Amino acid sequence: MRNIKLTIAYDGTAYHGWQIQRNARTIQGVLQQKIGIITGETISLIGSGRTDAGVHALGQVANFRTESRVPRDALKRGLNSLTPDDIAVQRVEEVGDDFHARYSARSKLYEYRILNTPVPSPIQRNFSWHVSQRLNLGKMEEAGGSLLGTHDFSSFRSAKTDNLNPVRTLMTLEIGKRKDHMLTIRTRANGFLKHMVRNIVGTLVDVGRGRLTPDEFEAIRDARDRTRAGMAAPSHGLFLVEVEY
Amino acid sequence: MRNIKLTIAYDGTAYHGWQIQRNARTIQGVLQQKIGIITGETISLIGSGRTDAGVHALGQVANFRTESRVPRDALKRGLNSLTPDDIAVQRVEEVGDDFHARYSARSKLYEYRILNTPVPSPIQRNFSWHVSQRLNLGKMEEAGGSLLGTHDFSSFRSAKTDNLNPVRTLMTLEIGKRKDHMLTIRTRANGFLKHMVRNIVGTLVDVGRGRLTPDEFEAIRDARDRTRAGMAAPSHGLFLVEVEY
Repeated sequence: MRNIKLTIAYDGTAYHGWQIQRNARTIQGVLQQKIGIITGETISLIGSGRTDAGVHALGQVANFRTESRVPRDALKRGLNSLTPDDIAVQRVEEVGDDFHARYSARSKLYEYRILNTPVPSPIQRNFSWHVSQRLNLGKMEEAGGSLLGTHDFSSFRSAKTDNLNPVRTLMTLEIGKRKDHMLTIRTRANGFLKHMVRNIVGTLVDVGRGRLTPDEFEAIRDARDRTRAGMAAPSHGLFLVEVEY
Repeated sequence: MRNIKLTIAYDGTAYHGWQIQRNARTIQGVLQQKIGIITGETISLIGSGRTDAGVHALGQVANFRTESRVPRDALKRGLNSLTPDDIAVQRVEEVGDDFHARYSARSKLYEYRILNTPVPSPIQRNFSWHVSQRLNLGKMEEAGGSLLGTHDFSSFRSAKTDNLNPVRTLMTLEIGKRKDHMLTIRTRANGFLKHMVRNIVGTLVDVGRGRLTPDEFEAIRDARDRTRAGMAAPSHGLFLVEVEY
């Protein structure tokens, strides 16, 4: 039995997220069906984790087991010709039997893009959150720094959640500035709770707008209460950049 | 009679280009209709020039004359609320009676984006040309340099053209490299012939691939013969960045 690891990029605009669903188009659903066509088997594709509807990926990872002897290159070319243009398989690797896309993951890196200009950009509209009010990056960095390390992230998890342990370790939270007023918030953690990045970004933007001080942001972290944080930033600004194993 | 200048950004993916057409959705067509709704007049919108189907703009310019007294800010907000998300009016200015978006233009700046990676990117698929073969930028820069200055650009014009004078002056041709293997070719000229940027880029990519030498590229320029140059680069990698007046 071979164990195949895929690294996948996608434009999530047209999908109801990663996770397979009845009567909805999802990334996992499309890929699993196309892999089935190539291998001639009913396979089960394991992702590193879900991404919400509209969220994008530069390096989502998934794996599946197969008896098929299709070479890696043929699998990659076949999948890229069968999938629509908004999904691309970047790498196909053969990995050890113990590799599991979800349980073997050591950390994930997400990037959130905010376009901070007076008027929205048609080009970036599906790939960033447009915020017209000028943001104070210094204050956002100060607030964001308080999330580094190991914390209970209950204040930043989804109100609807079934994940019991809210403690995660954040290794990175970097706020950067690209060309044409595109701000980026990159964050790496050993794992993320549901909506955690979007809730952190939404609350950091409240700091950037001056609605919250960095001290108040830190107090929200300590409150462990979802109702204290800001609104979730929209899904279309979020990219899963890479999964580390 | 007021003369109103608009600066417009658009994602050209869903349009049959700038120029108004019967039975086809165009940028000019949509804008002219929405301006008509706001001013209550049948106005005629003059663009700085056409862009092909699929070509994008960060700073297309157009003007129209109106008796309406709608303030500039209200016009901008009104247009941005009436137009779809893939068109955005960035600026509205009141200009002198002699301003003409096409005839007053002194130069235009275009940017062409090439994604030079083994596998295409779902995120960039509508905003760049994916070229998987590794390109030699040094050779492309050497070839491109031969276009600077005033030349007869017949070799790089569309085969179907009604524009009589093929002489243009190129002030800039810069090849740059951005994050994640995105190459950019930026070029400014006092004017461009139909398909000129796309034909130049297609032929420069032939140089980058090693199919043509920089000397052969220069000989194509001197031949003044459209059949000698390479194929036109696809429209979806091209952006009209700005029009200078």
